[in-house]
Amino acid sequence: MAEFRPFEVSDVRFPTSRSLDGSDAMNPDPDYSAAYVTVPTSDGDAGNGFVFTIGRGNEVAASAIHAVEAMVVGLDVDEVLGDMGAFWRRLVSDSQLRWLGPEKGVMHMAVGAVVNAVWDLKARRAGLPLWALLAEMTPRQLVDLVDFTYLSDALTPGEALALLERAAAARTERMAHLRESGYPAYTTSAGWLGYSDEKVTRLVGEAVADGFTHLKLKVGADIDDDERRVKLVRGLVGPDVLISVDANQRWGVDEAIANVRRLTPHGVYWIEEATSPDDILGHRAIAEGVHPVRVATGEHVANAVIFKQLLASGAIDVCQIDACRVAGVNENIAILLLAAKYGVPVCPHAGGVGLCEVVQHLSMFDFVAVSGTTEGRWIEFVDHLHEHFEDPAVVTGGAYRAPRAPGSGARMLPDTLRDYSFPDGVVWTASADETTGNTHHTTG
Amino acid sequence: MAEFRPFEVSDVRFPTSRSLDGSDAMNPDPDYSAAYVTVPTSDGDAGNGFVFTIGRGNEVAASAIHAVEAMVVGLDVDEVLGDMGAFWRRLVSDSQLRWLGPEKGVMHMAVGAVVNAVWDLKARRAGLPLWALLAEMTPRQLVDLVDFTYLSDALTPGEALALLERAAAARTERMAHLRESGYPAYTTSAGWLGYSDEKVTRLVGEAVADGFTHLKLKVGADIDDDERRVKLVRGLVGPDVLISVDANQRWGVDEAIANVRRLTPHGVYWIEEATSPDDILGHRAIAEGVHPVRVATGEHVANAVIFKQLLASGAIDVCQIDACRVAGVNENIAILLLAAKYGVPVCPHAGGVGLCEVVQHLSMFDFVAVSGTTEGRWIEFVDHLHEHFEDPAVVTGGAYRAPRAPGSGARMLPDTLRDYSFPDGVVWTASADETTGNTHHTTG
Repeated sequence: MAEFRPFEVSDVRFPTSRSLDGSDAMNPDPDYSAAYVTVPTSDGDAGNGFVFTIGRGNEVAASAIHAVEAMVVGLDVDEVLGDMGAFWRRLVSDSQLRWLGPEKGVMHMAVGAVVNAVWDLKARRAGLPLWALLAEMTPRQLVDLVDFTYLSDALTPGEALALLERAAAARTERMAHLRESGYPAYTTSAGWLGYSDEKVTRLVGEAVADGFTHLKLKVGADIDDDERRVKLVRGLVGPDVLISVDANQRWGVDEAIANVRRLTPHGVYWIEEATSPDDILGHRAIAEGVHPVRVATGEHVANAVIFKQLLASGAIDVCQIDACRVAGVNENIAILLLAAKYGVPVCPHAGGVGLCEVVQHLSMFDFVAVSGTTEGRWIEFVDHLHEHFEDPAVVTGGAYRAPRAPGSGARMLPDTLRDYSFPDGVVWTASADETTGNTHHTTG
Repeated sequence: MAEFRPFEVSDVRFPTSRSLDGSDAMNPDPDYSAAYVTVPTSDGDAGNGFVFTIGRGNEVAASAIHAVEAMVVGLDVDEVLGDMGAFWRRLVSDSQLRWLGPEKGVMHMAVGAVVNAVWDLKARRAGLPLWALLAEMTPRQLVDLVDFTYLSDALTPGEALALLERAAAARTERMAHLRESGYPAYTTSAGWLGYSDEKVTRLVGEAVADGFTHLKLKVGADIDDDERRVKLVRGLVGPDVLISVDANQRWGVDEAIANVRRLTPHGVYWIEEATSPDDILGHRAIAEGVHPVRVATGEHVANAVIFKQLLASGAIDVCQIDACRVAGVNENIAILLLAAKYGVPVCPHAGGVGLCEVVQHLSMFDFVAVSGTTEGRWIEFVDHLHEHFEDPAVVTGGAYRAPRAPGSGARMLPDTLRDYSFPDGVVWTASADETTGNTHHTTG
């Protein structure tokens, strides 16, 4: 009988602020980071997961993962892997830890890291990539993963089951299609706010040459500059490439409506994070005010309860799940089911470090077993930091290639864990003056 | 020129689970705790604040307070105290730490602890209790404390100013009334779920004898038992004492409506935390479904953006602010202003440890300078752990007595900080088998 052993938790940080990769109106100088957990078993296996952060406070997420540890160590591995729904409920409903959310923020993300690590382990033991493991579970098994307590006024277990059963018939052919053609991607690599026009022009050209038909630009610092940049890129790509914009929560509701209307003549596909991710009624007002521009949000939406309201009330046209914001795979399945019920396409947030690697599995599962389509759907792609992973995401011809290796994609390389460890890894000690993550450098 | 010095952060825990004080349907065995911060100045002053938790995870909140520390140490004290609005925005909008919320959960509560500590300092330096310090600020100064970015679609700075100016005329007489008569309280001391009928009967009798005209009972574990207990207490107190009930988020939306209807014939004033605190649309559906029973929530509402929606959409009839859930005094002033605009009475959550001491200042300020009335308003009172504070809350004749000592009420006694320190304080080392907070004891 194998049981779970004490976690190894690493505070891993990448000095991305040195090149302004990832700069946007809300986050001018992120150091992409992970509070990374290894969940070992007594028979020598391990699963990996992480909380993604952008630098300072990564140690708080690591502390939260340790708080979850006591609920897991000593549990029977087979029993946990055999009822992942019960495991999720156990971790989310610990009464004392729940107080720190509830079901939001650092504590919820830490639960997500551990839940995801155990899914990684389950997929490795099954010898399957996570998306295929999920896509081969029966509709009933999938429904049992979800806690419907706060969701059933919008989606009952019976409705979820019916939805999954309808999609089940064509699973095999969709899996074959996925292995053949991959899953559509869009790119944000060209549009960071800290980049010069020259760099944007070069990167947009490269993106189109690489097969991308959908680009995203950061906006939200200055609307005149935003309009100029959208116009610039529209001029570069012509009318047939989709351009979405992302304000990273910088605007109030009325401001968002006015600003999006300024950008609309240049052809905007979606407006992302126009305002606070908690503002359901605000997003609905924005959706009414900027139609036909689509309203997108989700990377900072704390849990399925907020997603339920955004979806059921017509506040969003694009549902942007994140692999590491909610409490892991189970809660993201709940959100995929809600999105399918309301007919809203799921276009995951990715980038950062490791988010592409993990979230692709959820979209691929969604295609095979839930929504049954990739129409109007793309997974975000940002081309950096993939080299730190055992099984890096592969995007070619504007599409994510279906992972074939067992697991969830979350495992980092041992050298990375050593060199990027904060504050003692060589990347940080070699340039002690830059360890705060506060320094600004011109772009590389 | 005085500047802020490095914080002292204490993990203080009270073994309340040993007597089931504070037990409810969601939280069967809380160990009331505080991640307690002292913010010292170079000229020998200090302010205090804390994150309130119920045990496990208190160390995560302490870690989050340390993450805030770097933004404060070295700042000029007079400059900060002179522009508390700017200080609040600085702490809430640090881009890297903000990612961990945003504006919710552990990180936001830690910011709240530090903001509250600096308000405590400001009040001490002014020689005033916090409520009086706030009540003597001009309407313009109060408006400048609030960040309206995500709120202005519901409440503009101009509307807030007008509202405060209307209330300003009668401030002096309301301050005199408050010092004379105090502020109405209701009690939860009699209604914890873990108490026997005999204990409830005795405590209800004592509460009525002590002058309370409004009691609250915990429900949500078993509706048959809930109905029996409400009926029992109604029989004890007769028709004129108000009875509210608190489900501590145990129900889904439809379940909440059905269960409240079961209790309604026995006379229920409000239903508190019927479902997830994030469910704005759910609360609105419940409000429609259980009318005329009032819907109350707020102690777990993460920020002013969620409160804005609950208030603007008519989802709640009672607004339950908490001193330590949102980012401190400034954000609670925003919520008081929103509640006043929508005419919703504010009835703070208190109890735990220290919550009564701090939140009373906000209700008293609300009465003097914002809403101008105590009608339909009560501050929760739970009679335990007050002895650990330098200036404990005083409730007599069913009313909180206006504090007269300078400060916010947050300062704990040195002996308490020493003896209840976790895990090394004598309270925890003396009974090592009980240090997990998981043990159950029969009631004392």
